[in-house]
Amino acid sequence: MAVNLTFNEDLLPIAGVRLATLNAGIRYKGRDDLLLLELAEGSSCAAVFTRNAFCAAPVIVSRENLAKAKPRYLLVNAGNANAGTGEQGLAAAKACCMALATAGACAPEQILPFSTGVIGQPLPVEKIVAALPSALASLKEDHWLAAAKAIMTTDTVGKAMSKQIEIGGQQVTMTGIAKGAGMIHPNMATMLSYVAMDAQVEANLLQTILSEVVEETYNCITIDGDTSTNDSLVLAATGRSGVVIDASNRAIFQQAVQDLCMYLAQAIVRDGEGATKFISVSVEGAKDRTEARVVGNTVALSPLVKTAMFASDPNWGRILAAVGRSPIDALDVNAVTLWLGDTLLIEKGQPAPSYREELGQLEMKRDEITVRIHLGRGSASATTWTCDFSYDYVKINAEYRS
Amino acid sequence: MAVNLTFNEDLLPIAGVRLATLNAGIRYKGRDDLLLLELAEGSSCAAVFTRNAFCAAPVIVSRENLAKAKPRYLLVNAGNANAGTGEQGLAAAKACCMALATAGACAPEQILPFSTGVIGQPLPVEKIVAALPSALASLKEDHWLAAAKAIMTTDTVGKAMSKQIEIGGQQVTMTGIAKGAGMIHPNMATMLSYVAMDAQVEANLLQTILSEVVEETYNCITIDGDTSTNDSLVLAATGRSGVVIDASNRAIFQQAVQDLCMYLAQAIVRDGEGATKFISVSVEGAKDRTEARVVGNTVALSPLVKTAMFASDPNWGRILAAVGRSPIDALDVNAVTLWLGDTLLIEKGQPAPSYREELGQLEMKRDEITVRIHLGRGSASATTWTCDFSYDYVKINAEYRS
Repeated sequence: MAVNLTFNEDLLPIAGVRLATLNAGIRYKGRDDLLLLELAEGSSCAAVFTRNAFCAAPVIVSRENLAKAKPRYLLVNAGNANAGTGEQGLAAAKACCMALATAGACAPEQILPFSTGVIGQPLPVEKIVAALPSALASLKEDHWLAAAKAIMTTDTVGKAMSKQIEIGGQQVTMTGIAKGAGMIHPNMATMLSYVAMDAQVEANLLQTILSEVVEETYNCITIDGDTSTNDSLVLAATGRSGVVIDASNRAIFQQAVQDLCMYLAQAIVRDGEGATKFISVSVEGAKDRTEARVVGNTVALSPLVKTAMFASDPNWGRILAAVGRSPIDALDVNAVTLWLGDTLLIEKGQPAPSYREELGQLEMKRDEITVRIHLGRGSASATTWTCDFSYDYVKINAEYRS
Repeated sequence: MAVNLTFNEDLLPIAGVRLATLNAGIRYKGRDDLLLLELAEGSSCAAVFTRNAFCAAPVIVSRENLAKAKPRYLLVNAGNANAGTGEQGLAAAKACCMALATAGACAPEQILPFSTGVIGQPLPVEKIVAALPSALASLKEDHWLAAAKAIMTTDTVGKAMSKQIEIGGQQVTMTGIAKGAGMIHPNMATMLSYVAMDAQVEANLLQTILSEVVEETYNCITIDGDTSTNDSLVLAATGRSGVVIDASNRAIFQQAVQDLCMYLAQAIVRDGEGATKFISVSVEGAKDRTEARVVGNTVALSPLVKTAMFASDPNWGRILAAVGRSPIDALDVNAVTLWLGDTLLIEKGQPAPSYREELGQLEMKRDEITVRIHLGRGSASATTWTCDFSYDYVKINAEYRS
């Protein structure tokens, strides 16, 4: 199913991070659906959350708690989003934190809860609470692989990666996991992602790095335009490697974090619900970055473009039509140039004389397709990654609850 | 396939309008694909066109010609959109007008060309020109039914309606046809619609009436968010009934035009590509109309909402999530109330205690579903009509060209 994606099982432990997973019976049988991630004392955390106004209860609680204290535990459940659950949902998320604080000997504010799954169902607090003692008892540094599996919902492939870099002669290790599948759109998605590293990064700097990295990675992917109530991405730095990140070594560190996040973000698209193609939409020659993004998103989200991609049909008129309806001011169609892969389709608004249907067909048959659009009105550019729209997207989303 | 829609074949001729259809061999075998509509001398015309920057050649030509002269002929072909065809496409549209002007003894500016079908293919001008003499020879007042059929592309049901009203003791008759199916979105769609009437309406007044009517009808429907390069709606008034429309009788006349356009616009949604449900999204309590539209569109276009509708699954969390990601400022989720039909789901941000899954299931099983959203921040409202997202939508759009 997923496009050129296999479960990367070669994961490195991060000193100062221990994980446990188990089946708490929240929704799924025969697989883990609860993840407990413990951060060593003194770790710093940064996070970004969904911008959906109807954000889930755990998002509200995590955001509040992160502002109050240094997190010690991340508690993640799959199968129930605890969203659209009102006051009761908030109480449920807080009850989980309270129970874990008691069992784990920390303050409730030091717990960040996360949920993913069906919206609008009461969270089975008692099942989660009942699972906490054995979760705490089984925490281990080398449980990253199990963690990547435990947070999956409609994902078909686990998403994980480790990376090591040398900074000042010392090794820094980072490992990240993510889950995605549907409801993926810029500004976060039904997407949970946790990235931990053993470098020491002051919390404000970590948040700045995270915000910049997200702009280049997670906020450049889209599957169906539906943002979720629950999206969360957490960066945790335990400091155990002894390497301190500051202005002198930030660049190399940030690049490594970005590479890791790019892999995870693109992995989410490759495993988009029903995906058979991995599509890059590059918009160049825009007045500014926002404009490039707007056009890229319009093309990437067009159901007509996405179904044509699914059919490997070089129906480039649909790409043109999507560019044309992008909400940007006064687009001059006679400045627009369009390529499919390396094949020129439209040159300054006119059909390219060199174009033949066979060339377009060749590009569309690939499982990785690049659409390149030059707007001819500036020098800004941006790339959006998306996937095609298949029968299986409808099937998965029509049947997800049943 | 179409939701509660049958081909309304009971059409009334309009004095001053003659029509001819035939198979010009543009794309389809065994069916007509060319429509010629003749307007009696002195008729007035109003039109609205797509706002897509990549508008098709015939749209550019029609817009120019309408500004220059009173139209005598509408020339419509199905199977080829003459869009994305650059200068060559413009020349092709003009060549058709020139040939018809010669054969029909009028100025080329008195012809409005329209095309619908595949984008990016050269228009077979010679086939259209060759068909003109027999089209002109077979013009008749009672060919409306054939006209409705000739403009269809992926439509499964013809869309047409006639209406008669009495104004000052005299009869006014109007007949309209439309084609739609995919690429339907506010601000016009791959939508062609022609409405003629025998009242006498001065061109400026007719344009004003058209603009107001479109706001309440065609611009309230959406199927997949993709606007087309070719959308056009024309209102023609022949004046042959002798009834003159002015300030004294405008209201009743405009209401009748609006009713007719509402029928045609909703018929397009009912026959949306792959549609199995007709969905009304009513947004109330908005600050202004635009805001109500923005929220209604976000819900109506959400692939996750649309696939849940297809599955008759009361997965109302997806509706909530779509409301929450609507691009409006500072939405207070604790002011939002949500109904499915008459069933209360969410009251001021909290799950309604009266709600049970069976009630939601009952509403979702209907083939006409109403979603009602009260934002609790003003008194403006708007309704958007859409359809669900089915396997067949993907099938039709993946296979359309092959």
